[in-house]
Amino acid sequence: MTRFVLKLEYDGRGFVGWQRQSNGLSVQQVLEQAAAHLCRGVVPPSVAAGRTDSGVHAAGQVVHIDLRDGLTTRAVRDALNYYLQPHSVVVTAVGIVDDPGWSARFSAIGREYRYEILNRSVRPALAAGFVWHVKEPLDAATMQRASMALVGRHDFTSFRAVACQAPSPVRTIDRISVNRSGERIVIEVSARSFLHHQVRNIVGSLKLVGVGYWPETRIAEVLAARDRSAAGPTAPAGGLTLIEVRYPQDPFAGQN
Amino acid sequence: MTRFVLKLEYDGRGFVGWQRQSNGLSVQQVLEQAAAHLCRGVVPPSVAAGRTDSGVHAAGQVVHIDLRDGLTTRAVRDALNYYLQPHSVVVTAVGIVDDPGWSARFSAIGREYRYEILNRSVRPALAAGFVWHVKEPLDAATMQRASMALVGRHDFTSFRAVACQAPSPVRTIDRISVNRSGERIVIEVSARSFLHHQVRNIVGSLKLVGVGYWPETRIAEVLAARDRSAAGPTAPAGGLTLIEVRYPQDPFAGQN
Repeated sequence: MTRFVLKLEYDGRGFVGWQRQSNGLSVQQVLEQAAAHLCRGVVPPSVAAGRTDSGVHAAGQVVHIDLRDGLTTRAVRDALNYYLQPHSVVVTAVGIVDDPGWSARFSAIGREYRYEILNRSVRPALAAGFVWHVKEPLDAATMQRASMALVGRHDFTSFRAVACQAPSPVRTIDRISVNRSGERIVIEVSARSFLHHQVRNIVGSLKLVGVGYWPETRIAEVLAARDRSAAGPTAPAGGLTLIEVRYPQDPFAGQN
Repeated sequence: MTRFVLKLEYDGRGFVGWQRQSNGLSVQQVLEQAAAHLCRGVVPPSVAAGRTDSGVHAAGQVVHIDLRDGLTTRAVRDALNYYLQPHSVVVTAVGIVDDPGWSARFSAIGREYRYEILNRSVRPALAAGFVWHVKEPLDAATMQRASMALVGRHDFTSFRAVACQAPSPVRTIDRISVNRSGERIVIEVSARSFLHHQVRNIVGSLKLVGVGYWPETRIAEVLAARDRSAAGPTAPAGGLTLIEVRYPQDPFAGQN
């Protein structure tokens, strides 16, 4: 077998999320069913770098999957995209890794998420499903300053879903930026890995700072509290996109 | 009666275009039916700056409509958005003009359209319906140089729909830009007014230059031919968005 690495783009609407679930269609199921056409109908298992939730989008999700030897990266890309066709999921790049222990999930050294807010009175018509619509004016500069308290290695219990199954609540945020571009506020967060709902819970809290409901110093207090109930509500899924996953060596370099 | 000026944002999918037609739902019909709630059920007529085609989007369409006196711009915006709710159409700004001869269409002195191409092998999953997917690599710099032949006052017969009803084929293009941003190529075109399909026919021809099928000098020849059959095919509607309409005085200044 050959370990193929896939880069995926998908519209998270209409999916229960990345992971297979009994209550609806997942991106994983759709991808594995497409891959089964390359495996004589046997559904091959796949592992993703980010287990995106229902409604969360991806521009650069990375997945590994083992397929029979002899397939080219181009053939895998085109065949998967052919069978994925009814769905809003595409494979944008394919690579091959030699190491049988290489994992899209465990070998990743960086993940970047982008969260978009549409900050105006009127609901979105063009970006519906891809932004969080916040009516109250947000002060992006204050949000940016407040977010600095989260950069570095911290116990993120306050920003983790109660259902999060990670053994440790400690994570290291390498970078956060909050930038306004007209009516849009774009929040980018990079870390080696994230806790469940971590980005959405951070955004939900920064929004409370942005509207002036919380002082900017409150984010550091929330972090120190190590208590989920100290943070703001979880921001809606639709504003979130998994942008990029990084590895020690780019598994797509020189391919496609 | 008071002449209200509305700025509209809409997703062109699911509409037959701006203009009322017997064969399907138009943006005009949806807007006027919403406005009828402010007019005791009588449907008021509206006039738009750009009669966008089916599938063409708007971020800054401008429309005028006469409603009874005494309504505030804020009340008109909120009421229309309330009644527009099932549809992907919103009013983002409202103004009032004193001149009863003011027209969203005839008073406009500038219109700006943006056309987006997704230039990669794989179909779009995230931007489906908002880009033209062109698989062959495009040379944006050559497209930009070729487009310069179209700037200025010219007879645009070659780039006008055969069904175009404008009395004259002469138009003045103030600005064209072609820029690549990663996998996206963004083409922006500004003019006082446009012929039917003019932007999409220009883009369809620039694409032939971009893939190298035509030399860059061909655009000037096509223009000089004054023959629709000399130009390239019409680019798909979904890539096109009406961005902005300009007037001697901004009708939205200081309102909302």
